[in-house]
Amino acid sequence: MSLLPTATVATIARHAGQRVTLAGWVYHKTEKGKLIFILLRDGSGTIQCVTFKKNVSEATFATAQALTQESSCRITGSVRADERAPGGYELDVEEIELIGPSHDYPITPKEHGVEFLMEHRHLWVRSSKQHAILRIRAEVIAAAQEWLNEQGFVRFDTPILTATAAEGTTNLFATDYFDLGKAYLAQTGQLYVEAGMMAFGRVYCFGPTFRAEKSKTRRHLTEFWMIEPEVAFADHEDNMRLQEQFVSAIVARVLDRRREDLKVLERDTTVLEQVVPPFPRITYDQAIELIASHQGEVEGADPLPWGEDFGAPHETLIASKFDRPVFVERFPSAVKAFYMQPDPNRPEVALCADLLAPEGYGEIIGGSQRIHDPVLLEQRIREHGLRIEDYEWYLDLRRYGTVPHSGFGMGIERVVAWITGTRHIRETIPFPRQLYRIYP
Amino acid sequence: MSLLPTATVATIARHAGQRVTLAGWVYHKTEKGKLIFILLRDGSGTIQCVTFKKNVSEATFATAQALTQESSCRITGSVRADERAPGGYELDVEEIELIGPSHDYPITPKEHGVEFLMEHRHLWVRSSKQHAILRIRAEVIAAAQEWLNEQGFVRFDTPILTATAAEGTTNLFATDYFDLGKAYLAQTGQLYVEAGMMAFGRVYCFGPTFRAEKSKTRRHLTEFWMIEPEVAFADHEDNMRLQEQFVSAIVARVLDRRREDLKVLERDTTVLEQVVPPFPRITYDQAIELIASHQGEVEGADPLPWGEDFGAPHETLIASKFDRPVFVERFPSAVKAFYMQPDPNRPEVALCADLLAPEGYGEIIGGSQRIHDPVLLEQRIREHGLRIEDYEWYLDLRRYGTVPHSGFGMGIERVVAWITGTRHIRETIPFPRQLYRIYP
Ligand SMILES: [Mg+2]
Ligand SMILES: [Mg+2]
Repeated sequence: MSLLPTATVATIARHAGQRVTLAGWVYHKTEKGKLIFILLRDGSGTIQCVTFKKNVSEATFATAQALTQESSCRITGSVRADERAPGGYELDVEEIELIGPSHDYPITPKEHGVEFLMEHRHLWVRSSKQHAILRIRAEVIAAAQEWLNEQGFVRFDTPILTATAAEGTTNLFATDYFDLGKAYLAQTGQLYVEAGMMAFGRVYCFGPTFRAEKSKTRRHLTEFWMIEPEVAFADHEDNMRLQEQFVSAIVARVLDRRREDLKVLERDTTVLEQVVPPFPRITYDQAIELIASHQGEVEGADPLPWGEDFGAPHETLIASKFDRPVFVERFPSAVKAFYMQPDPNRPEVALCADLLAPEGYGEIIGGSQRIHDPVLLEQRIREHGLRIEDYEWYLDLRRYGTVPHSGFGMGIERVVAWITGTRHIRETIPFPRQLYRIYP
Repeated sequence: MSLLPTATVATIARHAGQRVTLAGWVYHKTEKGKLIFILLRDGSGTIQCVTFKKNVSEATFATAQALTQESSCRITGSVRADERAPGGYELDVEEIELIGPSHDYPITPKEHGVEFLMEHRHLWVRSSKQHAILRIRAEVIAAAQEWLNEQGFVRFDTPILTATAAEGTTNLFATDYFDLGKAYLAQTGQLYVEAGMMAFGRVYCFGPTFRAEKSKTRRHLTEFWMIEPEVAFADHEDNMRLQEQFVSAIVARVLDRRREDLKVLERDTTVLEQVVPPFPRITYDQAIELIASHQGEVEGADPLPWGEDFGAPHETLIASKFDRPVFVERFPSAVKAFYMQPDPNRPEVALCADLLAPEGYGEIIGGSQRIHDPVLLEQRIREHGLRIEDYEWYLDLRRYGTVPHSGFGMGIERVVAWITGTRHIRETIPFPRQLYRIYP
């Protein structure tokens, strides 16, 4: 006989007045004499289950008394609308079946240190805030893919195991690959989506990417998920337009569908409501000036000479001047990847942009127009000290029907951190991988 | 100025009678005196562009004459309905702008060997059959995720870099992980989705998985994509019901939306139309008998003693007796993973099932009910020679509110091979990774 519930908390309104069986875990419990209030979470939501001694058998009341935090159980009862209840409904309990006990559940309502919680990440994901963050993560991922699919993009999965390093050999995880030498875990699918772009016009890849960086900031993971659209016949301007529509659509969908989760996280949604196109744009040069003229406002955001890349404090300072994500465009080519198209009017800068999230969440997108001329591309590969042989296939894309094209990569965890208002990126993925963490 | 087209082939019907600019690549060209027929592909489809000398400038006619296979160009003209045209429309050309030339494109209409095509995979994906297969792959992936989302499943991304081997240490790719020793590339996300299942009730992961297997068959890749749903309070029967609904929904969506691609592939769709629940079910024991009684029908499908696992020929033989996917259930526990729930009436077999595709495409799903009892699970971990310390977090899931639960993993490439009628799995992923292939 199946143990599946006959209803879920998320859709409980459909069952008003009906007798249903819910199945889940005890999130919290309070006893008041002949009344036991069980806050049951079933993964889709939480509901108060009211156990009144005179309505249930002695055995059921005893079971209710014995339930502890995170015990699993099936509870049968009737669904009653109640204005005062958080979800608008309560369950009047008739029967309780204990499924799995839970003694001394490690995560109690008291405060725990982050290290302790990370060691118990497999349990911590049940807690209401973590649950809300990860539910929003799933929504962001669905929104991103479905929006691109609706716009005619074709998903094009790029390889993780690659024979060469797309953007250089530093910070790569390596593994032995049979008799073929080393394989590297991809930091990006971009070079490969460019092949897809020439087959499908507009494509994207979405998957995990890897960076073996010895950095320990709140914005870094060694394994993170990235979605990378690429569009044929699109220039730098088209690219920024696409990005602002894309990001706005994702934020709008989260606001539309996950408002309860945002409430759990006490997220100020007014700043999210402002995320509509067009996004402000400043050049790298203007950003350098902005940083110089606001010296001292953000710790670590010291003035920079032209030609240097921003650090996290600089991004925070720049973003603080705008009420929505801001593009910083036309960086010096020297600090960017080899494949970026130079500005025809000023070849020392690239037709690229970083999109910075508001409120100090940093860069959420990096994008550019790509070099489509085979001669220039080959020259850049050599200038960057990369081996031409490794890029023959990539050069082929310029030899046979090359087109101006553009694309970008959006980091899922960065976006989720920003939308959910989570300061540290490690809480935006089920099992974060960091310099000192690979368990559980 | 943007180079983006004003219309795409896929949506050309909306522009009937209008003047549009398309942008794409020359798939094929024929000249008949004053007429040049350009078959343009723009990634969304192909359309015939008719260049009539008297309608265009001399320069444009010369450009049309100069176009070679896979040249990229922008073509402006008016959209004319034509019953005889494959897509129902043709373009009467007014202007042509060559964007990127293409000389001696390596893949010509003549036959090429598979090794040659695989070396040119970055170009081969433009060819009509490869294009159709990968378009269907994208549809399968969208269908799978959207169907699960609609059923209340929450996407829960599991880590690729793992400290231990989920199902044993053989066939794993390893990499150095800073000061923490080796990390292994996950073969499955299953253990981790079980943690998610207890937080969200029903979850799935979807991502690349890795197997460093020295096998060189048409059904194996070292890097392949898997979608793995997991459901709380679900038993083995619930699990099979979910699978047959899931697979049927995916096939139905491909039939609904990608019929043109199936036509390109000359796929017999009558066998796909039959894919509706319920799917036939036989036990492992019955399968052993079936194999014995049909000896000689399929090469290599020799009779097996009870207790041995099937090879590919056995799966082909079994599947050949059914008109839709068939479940083979209750395998000997000894040939399956350590976490499978034993049949209470017969503990030497597991409450598991493999789902075999028709027509010799092999196993597309492996699934089971999972052990929910902590004592039995710990015993199995020891029996399999695995270290308890590595599984403490996994055992915690049974210590705190354990529930009977079930799940399965569906291999995307296997499903795409079956739906598209592709004999070798290497054509079902953009850049296949095999024992002897990691380029391009
Ligand atoms: Mg940056
Ligand atoms: Mg098997």
